[in-house]
Amino acid sequence: MADHQAIIQGDLQDQAVAGHQSALGQTQTRVATLPGFVTESGFKFETIEVSYQTLGKLSPARDNAILVCHGLSGTAHVAGLDPTGRPGWWDYHVGPGKAIDTDKFFVIGTNTLGGCNGTTGPLSLNPQTGRPYGPGFPRITVRDMVMAQARLVDHLGLDTLLAVIGASMGGMQALTWAVHFPERVRVCVPIATCTAHNAMQIAFNEIGRCAIVTDPDWNGGEYTETRFPAHGLAVARMVGHVTYLSELAMARKFGRRRQADAADARQFSVESYLHHQGSSFVKRFDPNSYLCLTRAIDEFDLFAAAAPEAVLSRVRARFLVISFSSDWLYPPGQSRELVRLLKRAGIAASYINLDTEYGHDSFLIENPPFAEVLRHFLNGDHPRIHPHHHGEPL
Amino acid sequence: MADHQAIIQGDLQDQAVAGHQSALGQTQTRVATLPGFVTESGFKFETIEVSYQTLGKLSPARDNAILVCHGLSGTAHVAGLDPTGRPGWWDYHVGPGKAIDTDKFFVIGTNTLGGCNGTTGPLSLNPQTGRPYGPGFPRITVRDMVMAQARLVDHLGLDTLLAVIGASMGGMQALTWAVHFPERVRVCVPIATCTAHNAMQIAFNEIGRCAIVTDPDWNGGEYTETRFPAHGLAVARMVGHVTYLSELAMARKFGRRRQADAADARQFSVESYLHHQGSSFVKRFDPNSYLCLTRAIDEFDLFAAAAPEAVLSRVRARFLVISFSSDWLYPPGQSRELVRLLKRAGIAASYINLDTEYGHDSFLIENPPFAEVLRHFLNGDHPRIHPHHHGEPL
Repeated sequence: MADHQAIIQGDLQDQAVAGHQSALGQTQTRVATLPGFVTESGFKFETIEVSYQTLGKLSPARDNAILVCHGLSGTAHVAGLDPTGRPGWWDYHVGPGKAIDTDKFFVIGTNTLGGCNGTTGPLSLNPQTGRPYGPGFPRITVRDMVMAQARLVDHLGLDTLLAVIGASMGGMQALTWAVHFPERVRVCVPIATCTAHNAMQIAFNEIGRCAIVTDPDWNGGEYTETRFPAHGLAVARMVGHVTYLSELAMARKFGRRRQADAADARQFSVESYLHHQGSSFVKRFDPNSYLCLTRAIDEFDLFAAAAPEAVLSRVRARFLVISFSSDWLYPPGQSRELVRLLKRAGIAASYINLDTEYGHDSFLIENPPFAEVLRHFLNGDHPRIHPHHHGEPL
Repeated sequence: MADHQAIIQGDLQDQAVAGHQSALGQTQTRVATLPGFVTESGFKFETIEVSYQTLGKLSPARDNAILVCHGLSGTAHVAGLDPTGRPGWWDYHVGPGKAIDTDKFFVIGTNTLGGCNGTTGPLSLNPQTGRPYGPGFPRITVRDMVMAQARLVDHLGLDTLLAVIGASMGGMQALTWAVHFPERVRVCVPIATCTAHNAMQIAFNEIGRCAIVTDPDWNGGEYTETRFPAHGLAVARMVGHVTYLSELAMARKFGRRRQADAADARQFSVESYLHHQGSSFVKRFDPNSYLCLTRAIDEFDLFAAAAPEAVLSRVRARFLVISFSSDWLYPPGQSRELVRLLKRAGIAASYINLDTEYGHDSFLIENPPFAEVLRHFLNGDHPRIHPHHHGEPL
């Protein structure tokens, strides 16, 4: 079954998908070239490219746009099939009649700044040198990612978004949207995320980074296709995968079973699974990008500049905060703390901790209760935000 | 404070110990050379060397001996100071007046077979070649480790042990003692351990092994001092350290603080801590040994050969099973399941899940409630086991 596969595969984009159907059929990914972008750190791009995909139709009132923000390794390809037949990473939840219903909403997927799937990142050519930025790519922040998304939203001619939805790294982006563009976001849906990484979250990322930069083919980030830090990147992904799953999901799926067809017949199935995950990730992800993005999320701290009350006083969106009981990488306590701060700031916030077994990856898989919560909230009546009108707290 | 240090250092042997005092003063580690040892897999050693330490005095009745089994990276040096002033790994809990009281008990510490601290392991010279076994060291099992310990106990002239105590890998050894030498063990104390690794426990070990064997200086295990897979071993240890700690302990100790004296001032303290742990481990541990021991504990399955009732029907020891509420690597559920099986088999078993904050490492640190539980149980009246007299269940 598809959901069974997804549980062990992380997301649909990780899969060698056999016969996955999508009601959307083939969907297109485009690139917008946007001039003049300055990072928070002051680095000036003459232009940035932003990979994106739109699904569904924009309403005449232009009030049904939903921005979907991906996690660490996602792409602009949210749903439908790409030309090779590969489904988008959130095809389970985005499409006609699905939780994020493309019959009603105009859905925007976009690859993050600093990524390696079409949007400007370390693999992009540096016009100064004619070669990829590589390790010379500037340090970027989650706010930079959001600013690039905002430029795309401008480019699409949209003033406001009905919703910004994201899980994990995407949830940090959703939170940043609500804070930095209070008049452009009516609904904010941060999923399985936090306002700042704790020491353990930083630690797991740092282990991945260490595995990459101590790979002898790392070469200070100046690697080539033939001398590529594949081992380090694979180990980093293996660490990631274990943290995305729950103990129970792993026990159910693998237990202590052996891999009958492995070269070493004594190999446990879970070992073979991790090897597969590591090596398939190497084919689709860039090590400099991995460092760039994990650094950005480790540095993310929504309340670094000011106290929560001050930061949240600007927010006008309504919130739906979702966590998963078995998520030990972004534990529910972090979402509860966010909700506490939102409520204290007088912001309308619904919260649900879904009782799932699949750990952090619970948002990526077929998950009817999750879909139902999302659908119900998005179909609710969400007041428009009138610019410069600060009404009473919702 | 010492306990504060220990929390972040893993165990006392990881520390650069400044002024640590031990009531035992300097303690000695010896090596016993024992002829003729055959592993479970059939590999024949002409002799094995077993590194050990004894503390306290053997009673005239020879009935006060306690064998202490270390975790993955421990040594025979349990308590007191070595010639360089370094304390034993369990100096907090073994010594005069301590939980394992050397004024009352004759305590035996011993390095495990397959280890790299004095007992025969991959670093030992293979008499056939005159060079270290290295990757040619046979696969060993937890039962092999126990058989080597039993040979040492024979060598010390002891028929029975008052207790076998061990945490983590050492707990697996304690369980194996109780099963394989039912008439030699009066008390069995498995701490923070399990009867078989689950998929997640295997996964974390496999990530460490992958980091080691994909290090280009691994060279199929035929590394040298100058071409040594240090990066891989360091990454493996970093993964281990994160799994040994709790999220709360890491948050308390490191939070999001920065390392002021780091080359990169933006480095988080937790990153610098992990780097330190990785590089200090490289100086004291052998990569082939790391593979050998983690393989053995992944393969360990107390009930592989027969149903729990059948395996436990032979057991005559009384049990004290200890787990820690914040231990997510060896979660309390595994200990509860062990206790359930012991009780069902009519074995006298006390169980306590200690409410600690320090994760799996809770047994390594100063921990008065843990010490009290251990002391109380060891000081209880434990019936002798009369050979060949199978009484009613205790």
